[in-house]
Amino acid sequence: MPVGNIDWPDMPGIAGIELGVAQAGIKKAGRDDVLLLRLCEGASVAGVFTKNAFCAEPVKMCKKHMAAGSPRYLLINSGNANACTGQPGWNAAQACCDALADLEQVGAHSVLPFSTGVIGEVLPADKIIHVLPVLLENLSEDNWARAARSIMTTDTQPKGVSIECFVAGAKVRINGIAKGAGMIKPDMATMLAYMATDAAITPELLQILCKRAADKSFNRITIDGDTSTNDAFMLMASGKSQAPLINDVHSEAYRNFETAFIEASQNLAQFIVRDGEGASKYVEVEVRGGATEAECLNVAYEIAHSPLVKTAFFASDANWGRLVMAIGKADVKELDSNKVNVWLNDVALVEEGGRAASYTEEAGQAEMQKDEIRVLVDLGRGEAKESIWTSDLSHEYVRINAEYRT
Amino acid sequence: MPVGNIDWPDMPGIAGIELGVAQAGIKKAGRDDVLLLRLCEGASVAGVFTKNAFCAEPVKMCKKHMAAGSPRYLLINSGNANACTGQPGWNAAQACCDALADLEQVGAHSVLPFSTGVIGEVLPADKIIHVLPVLLENLSEDNWARAARSIMTTDTQPKGVSIECFVAGAKVRINGIAKGAGMIKPDMATMLAYMATDAAITPELLQILCKRAADKSFNRITIDGDTSTNDAFMLMASGKSQAPLINDVHSEAYRNFETAFIEASQNLAQFIVRDGEGASKYVEVEVRGGATEAECLNVAYEIAHSPLVKTAFFASDANWGRLVMAIGKADVKELDSNKVNVWLNDVALVEEGGRAASYTEEAGQAEMQKDEIRVLVDLGRGEAKESIWTSDLSHEYVRINAEYRT
Repeated sequence: MPVGNIDWPDMPGIAGIELGVAQAGIKKAGRDDVLLLRLCEGASVAGVFTKNAFCAEPVKMCKKHMAAGSPRYLLINSGNANACTGQPGWNAAQACCDALADLEQVGAHSVLPFSTGVIGEVLPADKIIHVLPVLLENLSEDNWARAARSIMTTDTQPKGVSIECFVAGAKVRINGIAKGAGMIKPDMATMLAYMATDAAITPELLQILCKRAADKSFNRITIDGDTSTNDAFMLMASGKSQAPLINDVHSEAYRNFETAFIEASQNLAQFIVRDGEGASKYVEVEVRGGATEAECLNVAYEIAHSPLVKTAFFASDANWGRLVMAIGKADVKELDSNKVNVWLNDVALVEEGGRAASYTEEAGQAEMQKDEIRVLVDLGRGEAKESIWTSDLSHEYVRINAEYRT
Repeated sequence: MPVGNIDWPDMPGIAGIELGVAQAGIKKAGRDDVLLLRLCEGASVAGVFTKNAFCAEPVKMCKKHMAAGSPRYLLINSGNANACTGQPGWNAAQACCDALADLEQVGAHSVLPFSTGVIGEVLPADKIIHVLPVLLENLSEDNWARAARSIMTTDTQPKGVSIECFVAGAKVRINGIAKGAGMIKPDMATMLAYMATDAAITPELLQILCKRAADKSFNRITIDGDTSTNDAFMLMASGKSQAPLINDVHSEAYRNFETAFIEASQNLAQFIVRDGEGASKYVEVEVRGGATEAECLNVAYEIAHSPLVKTAFFASDANWGRLVMAIGKADVKELDSNKVNVWLNDVALVEEGGRAASYTEEAGQAEMQKDEIRVLVDLGRGEAKESIWTSDLSHEYVRINAEYRT
């Protein structure tokens, strides 16, 4: 069960973006496992991908195809990551792209392939090629809910966001779906996210927005510090709304759109943490008072990745000694521990490097027992700040990951 | 239960180094919790300490006292770390040192204080001062076994090494004791280790040896990646053997002594991993073929700290996808994944970045089911290599750390 509410929202379609779903038999029988997105002509696409050196064959192919021209199709499967599969894996991804390109009479570089699931097994291309006609047949702008389910692996619920905002007075919509669960960490993970809008925006600006939104959302969540081979975060803009083209990064139109877009991205990213493997707590870690944003992030990740801190969250134990241990081991040059303050929600935990005078175990315990916890650290050495979102380390996390293949 | 044999060795005394043990009532009643080491006049002492910015008051005092002169007394308590306790914590440590200095008619800087246990509570100095006469009364060169027990916290067994080696033809002895359990990671942890020898060695050389030995032993083990506020690794040399003074870092005498000493340090450090919190596997990770030792270590730690890899070890699951994921997320510039090879004990797992042709699940499974596992990674880009030692992530780890204070 996820922590907090990640109920599926009302999600109207985005004009110019159709979704088709099918069962190829890669996951268990009876479950959707292939998704096709078809974009109208003239749509813009942008993306950011995993930085893992063992990036999967489809990730390499996406990068190649995006460099070659404007993609019109995103072909996504769950159940098999086609990672660490070498030339046979590349050939399988290529075969899927080629087959779809043939059916639709476009060049193969118009198709972007994505895979998520088990590592080390070559994608069964024939199974996917077999259902391409089904995918094309059920393409619809109103297929977002089924699409979100089709990309799930160990997720317990589908994840989606849908908001309206205004560009120069004209209404535009932003939809997004994502799958996550484990291997979630900065710089992407077993994480696929697709966001689409009917706003018109140049490909250059869309790529800038993609990077900025990733850095404030999907690159700020961590479940276990592990990073997968297949992560991708894709943005699509159909330009089918009545709003004018966004083509200037300094314009008010762009700034407003970016603000709305980042908020939607953050909500979607936070859903992934709320539904993290074995998560029983949802934790925001904010670090302020840093000399640089980098050192704020560094401290935040030390807290979020510390198994001792994470088990304390799981146990609802206000063990502030573990928090200061984690802060202290972050590589912050010349950190003065006497200037560090820490709060748990609104309760002062640490003042000037030691236990806060007002602190009581009862007050700390009461906050730790909540499902949603905010840890605020003030380093007392500057103006920079950063926030990340994480979960706890539970028996369930160990169980899920110990039994994953059994 | 530790993984493998960490039975207490036969440990004769070291001439010139006496140990006294007492029950101060800091840990549960009936358990030794204070240890005093008294060194003969002219003994050399060296040490390395935690790099955690929240280092405990006794650590700060140790550094100050060591800078002021030659220490003669090491006063160690378990059950209370006296960390994050500010001026009251400092005063408590000072009171203990002063009281012992008064009794022994020496300067307070002759006493080095050490504490391990719960963070954030001021050391009850009066309890320690109360038992100083008991400690002095039972000082004996033959007290190593009781000493090793007195510094334990969540350790399940006392840890000790004792070896003989030769310096310029004369026999010398090296003894060592350590406590560990959790918060074990490079650059020290809730880790205290004391090694002593009757060899004669200059303080400058002893400090060099201390740093080198730490870097090849206690700084190469990791249980959970967490680093405590109190770690210390101390070396003492009484000079009471018949061996000539070691005073040249380039001499054969020094080199031989260093080799023996590092081996003893490694054994002691490995005992800490074998008795790690919830450990059910003992894992050596060797990374070779790196361009630099730093990148080999980087890859080794990514493997050793990955919760997904550690749960796979716990589950005896030969999930090589998680291993390549961990290798790939290490920050190794321009790593060519196609040159990477991985072995599990003697079984080839990954060849040229993909599953080894000869690999079978049965063969992998058979190796993973062993208690002691060696992961060997060849990065295929240079001559550098490094080894570290770690444990798995078990239900028991979560249980111990979730219930630590309950």
